[in-house]
Amino acid sequence: MNYFSSNFKLGILGGGQLGKMLLYNTRKFDIYTSVLEASNEAPCKIACDEFHLGDLMDYDAVYNFGKQVDVLTIEIENVNIKALEALEKEGVKVYPASKTLRTIQNKATQKLFYIDNHLPTAPFSRFAYTSEIKEAINHGGLTMPFVWKCAQFGYDGTGVKIVKTIDDLEGLPNVECIAENLVPFKNELAVIVARNASGNVKTYPVVEMEFHPEANQVEYVICPARIPEAVAKKAEEVALKTSEAYNHVGLLAVEMFQTQNDDILINEVAPRPHNSGHQTIEASYTSQFEQHIRAILNLPLGRTDSKVGGVMVNLVGAEGYSGDVVYENIETIMNMDGVTPHIYGKKQTRPFRKMGHVTIVNEDLAEARKIAEAVKKTIKVISK
Amino acid sequence: MNYFSSNFKLGILGGGQLGKMLLYNTRKFDIYTSVLEASNEAPCKIACDEFHLGDLMDYDAVYNFGKQVDVLTIEIENVNIKALEALEKEGVKVYPASKTLRTIQNKATQKLFYIDNHLPTAPFSRFAYTSEIKEAINHGGLTMPFVWKCAQFGYDGTGVKIVKTIDDLEGLPNVECIAENLVPFKNELAVIVARNASGNVKTYPVVEMEFHPEANQVEYVICPARIPEAVAKKAEEVALKTSEAYNHVGLLAVEMFQTQNDDILINEVAPRPHNSGHQTIEASYTSQFEQHIRAILNLPLGRTDSKVGGVMVNLVGAEGYSGDVVYENIETIMNMDGVTPHIYGKKQTRPFRKMGHVTIVNEDLAEARKIAEAVKKTIKVISK
Repeated sequence: MNYFSSNFKLGILGGGQLGKMLLYNTRKFDIYTSVLEASNEAPCKIACDEFHLGDLMDYDAVYNFGKQVDVLTIEIENVNIKALEALEKEGVKVYPASKTLRTIQNKATQKLFYIDNHLPTAPFSRFAYTSEIKEAINHGGLTMPFVWKCAQFGYDGTGVKIVKTIDDLEGLPNVECIAENLVPFKNELAVIVARNASGNVKTYPVVEMEFHPEANQVEYVICPARIPEAVAKKAEEVALKTSEAYNHVGLLAVEMFQTQNDDILINEVAPRPHNSGHQTIEASYTSQFEQHIRAILNLPLGRTDSKVGGVMVNLVGAEGYSGDVVYENIETIMNMDGVTPHIYGKKQTRPFRKMGHVTIVNEDLAEARKIAEAVKKTIKVISK
Repeated sequence: MNYFSSNFKLGILGGGQLGKMLLYNTRKFDIYTSVLEASNEAPCKIACDEFHLGDLMDYDAVYNFGKQVDVLTIEIENVNIKALEALEKEGVKVYPASKTLRTIQNKATQKLFYIDNHLPTAPFSRFAYTSEIKEAINHGGLTMPFVWKCAQFGYDGTGVKIVKTIDDLEGLPNVECIAENLVPFKNELAVIVARNASGNVKTYPVVEMEFHPEANQVEYVICPARIPEAVAKKAEEVALKTSEAYNHVGLLAVEMFQTQNDDILINEVAPRPHNSGHQTIEASYTSQFEQHIRAILNLPLGRTDSKVGGVMVNLVGAEGYSGDVVYENIETIMNMDGVTPHIYGKKQTRPFRKMGHVTIVNEDLAEARKIAEAVKKTIKVISK
């Protein structure tokens, strides 16, 4: 299929920052793009050839949109899967496949998939309703502490809570959920696997993720992870096996825990470009966004090794500020060595909202990490 | 001034591929952009916030456009300078300044500027009309061979001809021109100098340009140039002095010759991102496009050193083909190590038209150069 300067159309479900960064690469390759998105102020509003407003969870919206394109991809998992199934039957190439999304969209189903495929993951119990958890605790079938996770629609740290006492259950929505063993871990890691339709596979270097204790959001992403070679290899193997099990096309970001015993357990996956891969734009031979485009168009995959060390910090709305966004001290951080801010284009900030990220690259990873800390202390996402 | 997610507006005169690549970075920083361009099918058509059709050489078009923005820049030199002068008087920040453009737009004026500022350049004579050249030759005031260059509107190798015999003058337009000494040179080099409004300066590494003998277009750009350290330093010094003389803001690409004696002579300059700097996107710590944005917004400049070796080849329309473009074998080159094609988005190809470029990066520059040759032999820009 001739993708370049032709009649080919690529559809993207979702118009947020991940889509925006995909569009850098469709522009680079002059690939015609159509975006479906609910908000008229989304980051993807410009730089795509067609921008359509619509609800991603609505069957008709997704189906009618998908009928217009040759290849359809996502930048967010919460999309109408039945519509994707219908489109697949009619010959639209959907990547990731509806089957993959169905498995991943529900955390309980996802965890069962790992068990069924002999992939390492923390033990868990599944509940139709959060209320059933109290009973399980009282009957001794479930011990605290554990990690409560809603089965559907959690994102960016929401829908996850560490439960140490019964009181911690207060206020949690009464929905389908899982209670997962609380695994004491050394590190949170991620590996992004790229796979094209022909089955060619490449993995990115293992990255390390440092989390904000309260908001449960990533603070630093460090590439490569500062872990022993043997552990990195294990993580890579688990990620590859996971990718094979899903038979996925495109990118698969596999988030894992490195336990105290240096075992690797899968936390969860995302079948699309991922926050842990943003540093690839400046640090890698091939950005994850370019790679995702290559993969879903069945083009050859690019190199995944790094040119230089990379650290990424997220720019999230500061607590106590809501309204028209101001990036305080952004000029100061732009004076720091190897620093590039990415501003997603959301006009309104609120506490913990993902407004952008900053990548720090350096031949010396320790230096990059130091500068990243200075960046974090300096720039503040506030409001007018 | 607050540029990010604010009421700030950046204007770009010209909507071609240089503007397109500037827009990658304005999107990255969420800077509001307005583009003025004559063609409704220009590469900048999408990815800017406002796209205006108009003739860049027309006073009213440029003036009315410029009145709407806070900072105005160019991606092409052929713009109405009187309009820029008027805008400058009214407080619009124009970079490069109208004064700089006035000097550069006319090759004769440009050459005189170098003489006046004691900057090294090949000797030349200036003529009001090409017809005067014959007389000069007959009176012995001008010897062949020499390089004929029209004073205005030459670009991409047009308006330049090596004159070895009087017959070579046949067919040349009867316009203001210069006859420049034909200097036997070892290499054609370029240095891009970045300078922000506060006067902070950084230079990019010296690059080497290999030219196509007939079309007078660059075939390979190699970074860093494979020349002795001492010569590179000289080239950098000449570029810096040239930048100071112009007092320019933004980027200044200084093209130079390395003579047989290893002297450095200025060929010409371009006060904007330049073809010789495209490899910076993948090879440098800061792409020339991001750097130009930083410079004209008076933000701190980013690092200009390279992460890896970089070679760029231009994608020009193959001889004998005109019409809807086809990039033959583009998938094959995308399977080569460190290769990224850039497709500008022009729908129609014709012989020697600049349709895109391909960058090859590698830790080993010699390897990159080898792969670049394979790229050049493989990809062909033809028509349906």
